[in-house]
Amino acid sequence: MVVQLKSHENPIIKHVLKLINSKSFRKREKEFVIEGARLCENAVMSCVKIKNFFYTEKALERYKSTVELILKFAEKSYSVSEGIMESISDVKNSQGILCLCSMLDKQLCLDKISNVDKIVVFESIQDPSNLGTMLRTAEALGINEIILTQDCCDIYNPKVLRGSMGAVFRLLIHITCDLQALIHYFNDNEIKTYAAVPDNNSVIITNVDFNDGPCAVFIGNEGNGLKEKTINLCSKKLTIPMKGRAESLNAAVATSIIMWELIRGG
Amino acid sequence: MVVQLKSHENPIIKHVLKLINSKSFRKREKEFVIEGARLCENAVMSCVKIKNFFYTEKALERYKSTVELILKFAEKSYSVSEGIMESISDVKNSQGILCLCSMLDKQLCLDKISNVDKIVVFESIQDPSNLGTMLRTAEALGINEIILTQDCCDIYNPKVLRGSMGAVFRLLIHITCDLQALIHYFNDNEIKTYAAVPDNNSVIITNVDFNDGPCAVFIGNEGNGLKEKTINLCSKKLTIPMKGRAESLNAAVATSIIMWELIRGG
Repeated sequence: MVVQLKSHENPIIKHVLKLINSKSFRKREKEFVIEGARLCENAVMSCVKIKNFFYTEKALERYKSTVELILKFAEKSYSVSEGIMESISDVKNSQGILCLCSMLDKQLCLDKISNVDKIVVFESIQDPSNLGTMLRTAEALGINEIILTQDCCDIYNPKVLRGSMGAVFRLLIHITCDLQALIHYFNDNEIKTYAAVPDNNSVIITNVDFNDGPCAVFIGNEGNGLKEKTINLCSKKLTIPMKGRAESLNAAVATSIIMWELIRGG
Repeated sequence: MVVQLKSHENPIIKHVLKLINSKSFRKREKEFVIEGARLCENAVMSCVKIKNFFYTEKALERYKSTVELILKFAEKSYSVSEGIMESISDVKNSQGILCLCSMLDKQLCLDKISNVDKIVVFESIQDPSNLGTMLRTAEALGINEIILTQDCCDIYNPKVLRGSMGAVFRLLIHITCDLQALIHYFNDNEIKTYAAVPDNNSVIITNVDFNDGPCAVFIGNEGNGLKEKTINLCSKKLTIPMKGRAESLNAAVATSIIMWELIRGG
């Protein structure tokens, strides 16, 4: 069913804008918004439930097969003017394709992660572009299971969704509200726990054998790294040796090198 | 010598703005602009020539030792109001410290790179944030020599300078206007040439021994990769194996993994 939407004042428009801008509103409504032909098609292919689909006439011309695919799966579709699309779009050059989706269940149940092989845990990652890049990298390197602490930036943030190239839909992402319990669980179940730290007294990452049984690597906040408590609970500290005056890698790069090492020999 | 600068109309203000915004103007004047306590201090420590130094009273209070250091080395210094600083600053929350510097000589002379060990060559990198991150990563991993093609984004672009964390000042960066001649030079001098490509039929990067003599790795544009001509001139193609539906890494991440492999066993 396609509805012609002509007024900016329609409550659904305000609803979309609120979803784009507010994490707490997304959480309450259990909905999120995605944009662009590729990302929306990705969502359909990953069986994300499309509640509302908004598209322009131009998009129907330019991305015919994508629009027709989404029309098949969307519960309700709206044909909108360029002006309305612009008012709800979060990007500079909108492709005229936008979906309102139902959230996936990402709450952590420990029994769901019992078959751990290699898992990466992010603590308090704040920057949506960083998190998006990290998730995209995880998928490309074949790390399929990711755990995030509850205070990480929201995976349904538009920048995370875009930066991840849709990996948010395909990865097994769990959100945990009790990181300490998780580390205890890993330690008790012979899953090795590694804390990534910028500390030259730690084990150099190339000296760790990640294929010696299941393991979890913990990666911390961009500015402050892992919390002291987290580091102390992990069984080992590992580090990337660094040179130069800056002696620093940006968070997404450091994480990428760690994930690369994790799968490198596997 | 410190001058009180009170008018937005002073020609030096317009000169600074033009340097920030125009690559061709930077090139013509052989000058560039940097901002922030850390980056400006880095420039001084790297013997970059500071022609003009602009600072606010607040900066003098908050970053006393940095401001005093720059005052010693700057040819001419200007104490400016918050309003003037805001008008010339390129960042959201200016620290009130800005320097106009002389460009370093980065033109490629082949005799300057005769002692090649491991070198990375960037072809047509367009995004300043990517280039900044790549240079920062190169320094942190201990790759000290970088060659850029002339059509790469300008290393004196404010975003590159910031993103590189000052690595632009410390790395040996050469700009080449004849990439083909360079590859021939490498090939003729027993410097192995590797083209990085997203092609699963190429040598997997972990199977390359980068410690078997000097080598140069060529990395291409974010969207289009290396030019066909470049790939064909290189002696080998190498690739990062990728999984998942997106099968893609962002340019800075892919480059970081390549540079990591380059130094990993060294």
